[in-house]
Amino acid sequence: MSLSAMQVENLIRQWIPMAEAMDLKVERIDNGHARIRIPFNNKNKRPGGTVSGPVLMAAADTAMYAAILGAVGEVAMVVTSNLNINFMQRPGQVDIIAEGKILKLGKRLAYCEVDIFTSASAELAAHVTGSYALPPELSSQATLGTS
Amino acid sequence: MSLSAMQVENLIRQWIPMAEAMDLKVERIDNGHARIRIPFNNKNKRPGGTVSGPVLMAAADTAMYAAILGAVGEVAMVVTSNLNINFMQRPGQVDIIAEGKILKLGKRLAYCEVDIFTSASAELAAHVTGSYALPPELSSQATLGTS
Amino acid sequence: MSLSAMQVENLIRQWIPMAEAMDLKVERIDNGHARIRIPFNNKNKRPGGTVSGPVLMAAADTAMYAAILGAVGEVAMVVTSNLNINFMQRPGQVDIIAEGKILKLGKRLAYCEVDIFTSASAELAAHVTGSYALPPELSSQATLGTS
Amino acid sequence: MSLSAMQVENLIRQWIPMAEAMDLKVERIDNGHARIRIPFNNKNKRPGGTVSGPVLMAAADTAMYAAILGAVGEVAMVVTSNLNINFMQRPGQVDIIAEGKILKLGKRLAYCEVDIFTSASAELAAHVTGSYALPPELSSQATLGTS
Repeated sequence: MSLSAMQVENLIRQWIPMAEAMDLKVERIDNGHARIRIPFNNKNKRPGGTVSGPVLMAAADTAMYAAILGAVGEVAMVVTSNLNINFMQRPGQVDIIAEGKILKLGKRLAYCEVDIFTSASAELAAHVTGSYALPPELSSQATLGTS
Repeated sequence: MSLSAMQVENLIRQWIPMAEAMDLKVERIDNGHARIRIPFNNKNKRPGGTVSGPVLMAAADTAMYAAILGAVGEVAMVVTSNLNINFMQRPGQVDIIAEGKILKLGKRLAYCEVDIFTSASAELAAHVTGSYALPPELSSQATLGTS
Repeated sequence: MSLSAMQVENLIRQWIPMAEAMDLKVERIDNGHARIRIPFNNKNKRPGGTVSGPVLMAAADTAMYAAILGAVGEVAMVVTSNLNINFMQRPGQVDIIAEGKILKLGKRLAYCEVDIFTSASAELAAHVTGSYALPPELSSQATLGTS
Repeated sequence: MSLSAMQVENLIRQWIPMAEAMDLKVERIDNGHARIRIPFNNKNKRPGGTVSGPVLMAAADTAMYAAILGAVGEVAMVVTSNLNINFMQRPGQVDIIAEGKILKLGKRLAYCEVDIFTSASAELAAHVTGSYALPPELSSQATLGTS
């Protein structure tokens, strides 16, 4: 029931036009983790020669979604319940990399954490936690290989 | 030093290509408040016939930015420090309206709250709080007419 | 089914020994709102001649709990799901006042907002949002008079 | 300039009466990490045979404070700026263990993450992120051995 990185990328790009517009890549799906990349694009800038905050939020939200889809399968209707982001360092004009992982897959909510980096630095650009609401029919079935 | 809704809209659309691409409107700027609108567009959808979460995050972030620019003037380098969003009700395929207000304009951080509605309902679609870091040269000057 | 301020205070002090130890007062319950007070006590200090952060968190959590109990009745097992607090101004050695309100009473989660003041100032000391998980048997019945 | 677990425990218990009242232990301080323990006590209960939410918030806040004191030395006036907590699983009547780590020690803010466990389970009881404001005189000096 779990999905590959390519399957998750295809689902997300098909379901979410903004992800397609951002040329979103799902680079890895693995046991409750997902790594996604948003290639640098002048459309995503803001003043200060940096990528705008909402692009990092979109990267984080999508990394959580990808990690959950990777774990529970092709279920479109998992939806963000809460997202909290702390910005730590302005990225330059570089790719945004978001490493999401599932902290807990509960009955009604999946809790995730996302580290946001850039292709230019090992330091965190932002750190995100969030929860996704799971549809009732899913709740009883979902499991992680390990976590 | 404070700016009108039209001035803030022009600055944001010039500075942030994503805001231009979303056809962002700044409808009102008033004493620490800002109302912005993101017209419905098929590009902003996600499964469930609803607007994707990152569009609401972009609306919230921009409403905070607009409220702050309205209060402190043409200062590009105020940047999001933290944003926390709770999603309460899925919007349909309608305009997104974000009402931002400044809770406190401190020396180093401005704290804001944003109510997100749609053009179809008086109930909250999402509720957001966040903080923006202010540049040091600004800190000593900024004041709100009232708050 | 809704409860008075005195009833909510008695329930909370009986159920939560820490609230009793803090001499917590529920001053008002009204249509999805609650105001609680934590009298100043040297036990609640921290360096800087101020009240420690966790006391403000306890005040906020209790104000949300009181607002929900006031709305849904004597239901012990509503539990905090998420709480997000921004500290804006250090209180002095004064009473802490927390004004909680229900933003949305949903089927599975109640969303609340809390303004934290002191008895010495009209400015916010802290601002809090949070969600409480509601027990399934409650979900179908709860309503607010208005919201 | 960095402090040992015993030194940090002594400072916190001396500075914060609530930590003394909770019999707070600092079990480990190590390179931007801190582990603290709050022994189970009937004073910390709430309905459901569990520890009350504010006790977990106090544990998290103190774990962040301990990690920062461990890294920057005896500086009382670092203060919580933001704290966000997600509750994942009700602890039973057991000790609360909070593992804090510094994600980034910036000029004005230190960002931390805290995993909250109990002495009875390897699963997360709660997950916390937060930021602490650093005093200006500290900003230029603080460094982590590694992070």
